[in-house]
Amino acid sequence: MMDLHHMAALAREAAWSLAATPIEARNRALTAMAEALEDSKAEIFSANEKDLAQAERDQLAAPLLGRLRFGAEKLRQVSEGLYALAELPDPIGQTTMARELTEGLRLYQVTCPIGVIGVIFESRPDALVQIASLALKSGNAVLLKGGREALHTNAALCAVLRQAAEKAGLPRDFAQLLESREDVAAMLKEDGLIDLIIPRGSNAFVRYIMDNSRIPVLGHADGVCHVYVDKAADVPMAIRIAVDSKAQNVAVCNAMETLLVHRDIAEALLPALMTAMTDKHVRLLGDERVRAIIPVEAATEEDWRTEYLDYVLSIRVVDDLAAAIDHINRYGSHHTDCIVTADDEAAQAFLARVDSAGVYRNVSTRFADGFVYGFGAEVGIATGKIHARGPMGLEGLTTYKYKLLGSGQLMAEMKRGERRYTHRTLNESCPMDAFDGGGK
Amino acid sequence: MMDLHHMAALAREAAWSLAATPIEARNRALTAMAEALEDSKAEIFSANEKDLAQAERDQLAAPLLGRLRFGAEKLRQVSEGLYALAELPDPIGQTTMARELTEGLRLYQVTCPIGVIGVIFESRPDALVQIASLALKSGNAVLLKGGREALHTNAALCAVLRQAAEKAGLPRDFAQLLESREDVAAMLKEDGLIDLIIPRGSNAFVRYIMDNSRIPVLGHADGVCHVYVDKAADVPMAIRIAVDSKAQNVAVCNAMETLLVHRDIAEALLPALMTAMTDKHVRLLGDERVRAIIPVEAATEEDWRTEYLDYVLSIRVVDDLAAAIDHINRYGSHHTDCIVTADDEAAQAFLARVDSAGVYRNVSTRFADGFVYGFGAEVGIATGKIHARGPMGLEGLTTYKYKLLGSGQLMAEMKRGERRYTHRTLNESCPMDAFDGGGK
Repeated sequence: MMDLHHMAALAREAAWSLAATPIEARNRALTAMAEALEDSKAEIFSANEKDLAQAERDQLAAPLLGRLRFGAEKLRQVSEGLYALAELPDPIGQTTMARELTEGLRLYQVTCPIGVIGVIFESRPDALVQIASLALKSGNAVLLKGGREALHTNAALCAVLRQAAEKAGLPRDFAQLLESREDVAAMLKEDGLIDLIIPRGSNAFVRYIMDNSRIPVLGHADGVCHVYVDKAADVPMAIRIAVDSKAQNVAVCNAMETLLVHRDIAEALLPALMTAMTDKHVRLLGDERVRAIIPVEAATEEDWRTEYLDYVLSIRVVDDLAAAIDHINRYGSHHTDCIVTADDEAAQAFLARVDSAGVYRNVSTRFADGFVYGFGAEVGIATGKIHARGPMGLEGLTTYKYKLLGSGQLMAEMKRGERRYTHRTLNESCPMDAFDGGGK
Repeated sequence: MMDLHHMAALAREAAWSLAATPIEARNRALTAMAEALEDSKAEIFSANEKDLAQAERDQLAAPLLGRLRFGAEKLRQVSEGLYALAELPDPIGQTTMARELTEGLRLYQVTCPIGVIGVIFESRPDALVQIASLALKSGNAVLLKGGREALHTNAALCAVLRQAAEKAGLPRDFAQLLESREDVAAMLKEDGLIDLIIPRGSNAFVRYIMDNSRIPVLGHADGVCHVYVDKAADVPMAIRIAVDSKAQNVAVCNAMETLLVHRDIAEALLPALMTAMTDKHVRLLGDERVRAIIPVEAATEEDWRTEYLDYVLSIRVVDDLAAAIDHINRYGSHHTDCIVTADDEAAQAFLARVDSAGVYRNVSTRFADGFVYGFGAEVGIATGKIHARGPMGLEGLTTYKYKLLGSGQLMAEMKRGERRYTHRTLNESCPMDAFDGGGK
């Protein structure tokens, strides 16, 4: 067993090397991974059987067992994902700004990988393949820590991905598997080698990471999502969106937890909403004004901050749009919030003022997802505001550098007025692209 | 004296309100600020005299006194900056991606302010105006902590800016001045109200901030910048670039601290370089291979990591380009590094593999600056890789949100196959822009 510092140093070297690889090599590695997973499926399935047997002995709940299972169907999905990812354009080496600073001096802002990323994820082993492949496509190295339950499956998958990368001429150490909680604690100290931590897990876990590392953290804490039914809402549409947002899948971060209702439409909405939610076995809680209209349990202050992830919904009547926005900004988690309204002006105000990664009009909150947004897959959903927001795909795994190409320009010449700034926009890509011959 | 939590809450309210203001109002506030500074110059200059008198009593060094002085010339520069900033395009409300997800459902990635930003800056009072105005233009609120030496000047400037904003119809609490170190410590705990901290200061200070806050930090630690003279360099150009990078201004973060020289060109370069540097009163340190060619003091391992900010330069001879890149990535601070070479392939490898915010070919490292890059001004230079890198102007003060406009689409319909994903790129801006009528 290698120590974490050494693993991080190998990842650092792998990342520096990957940053200068052509897209053809990275895409070749992705298709090689799909082929290698197919070739090694016997070993992978057998490793997964081991994990499943242990999970049954540990009496894991049925939904968790389902997430842990990695059989022929999961393999097919994962392979499809790899081929699709290979088709996407190169996220690195893209010129995002080009400007002449002074005669003969050209500045380019060019996308590049972040470097070394630590990702801590839940028990689903297909997540390992998604994260590692997004990292490789974007030229990053990853240290991966999966759920304890999936240890054998993750080890088998990671070994296959590393071999496939190496066969395609890329450094195998672009992906390495951490095995223990001690490894995670050690990883948090490696701020000299690791550029970013992405924790996927509970709110408390994300806070633990933030409190114990100097490394930047991108993750989502809670998913307390809202639907606000405006006075100008179409009632049947509002009910359909509310039911889908709450009950299509209650165990996900983009499910609605609190429904806000404009007081002018509460009488028309709430009785029909109660019927629809009861059909879906959703237990309702409400404030006093809700309970004056429908017979539900009382919601407390604590409910407004709660991510139930269950068949429970809290409901509040508000005086106006401003009160709804205020409630969402105050109690929400800045994930995804929706207004149902036919009024353009109300929608515009809601979208501008609600301080969340996703602000929706007339559509279920369940659409907040990297695949749905067309990003191929996601490494996580960010609820912070720095770097990336919402579902994070390839773009979230890149940064940029400034490449400045000159012919001997000096600051002393600028200060003496021998040259002047032109700041002329250029319509061209940086002539120095990401690929190089090796650096000897 | 208000407590910090209350100040942060006022900033939060101001930020939510600013996020929905039209660009005309923000630009009007910027020109009103320039006019108000002119109108209040007597009070500002008199406040500055107080600070200068105290600084003289405290025997501050002459360069620090110069930075502290805020007279007619500084006022003119600061006003020009405000008018220029008012001319720049709106950084928020810009659609950066537009996509149809399924029929009638349109996704827009739209730039928006970050929210509340805490900035801790050095004694220069003109920095206060630059930072506050960049924040206002980009729709953010700022909590400002300047140097103790500039307390009276900063208070006078901040009061003028707040009044001008209010007269232009914007919340005066968009800018608030912190007065003590206790305020800074309290600010670091307000992760529920503050979105980002930008510390400008020493390496140790930036680390203190990172270790004591859950709030994301964007700042630059050291500026250990390199010039690498490749074997294919033009020797006179290399010497001119080295002298400008080191000695044009030694006290700034983009000055060179270490010169790397390819062994094949060392004999041709070093004697002439020594003459040029000695003319500028630069003391040279070198490794053994340097000292075999020119008589200089010995550099130690510690020198490779040192930001001198002084008339001192460490020099090392390297075997090849790969060794130069390795030295820079290992000992540097990922700020700005330059290769001097006539060889395109060597330049390409250097630009791809050096892991710094600025990677230069044949130009002085002194060009790493927000004004030079054409950003108007900068709030700081980021040496991390998350969110913003290099000189941070308006763009670094924005993030984005996803606006999703639907007509009742449900996830259940997608799962049942009643609708299908189209993921069609749209060539349009989000029809719901940042401005709104008020939210009643």
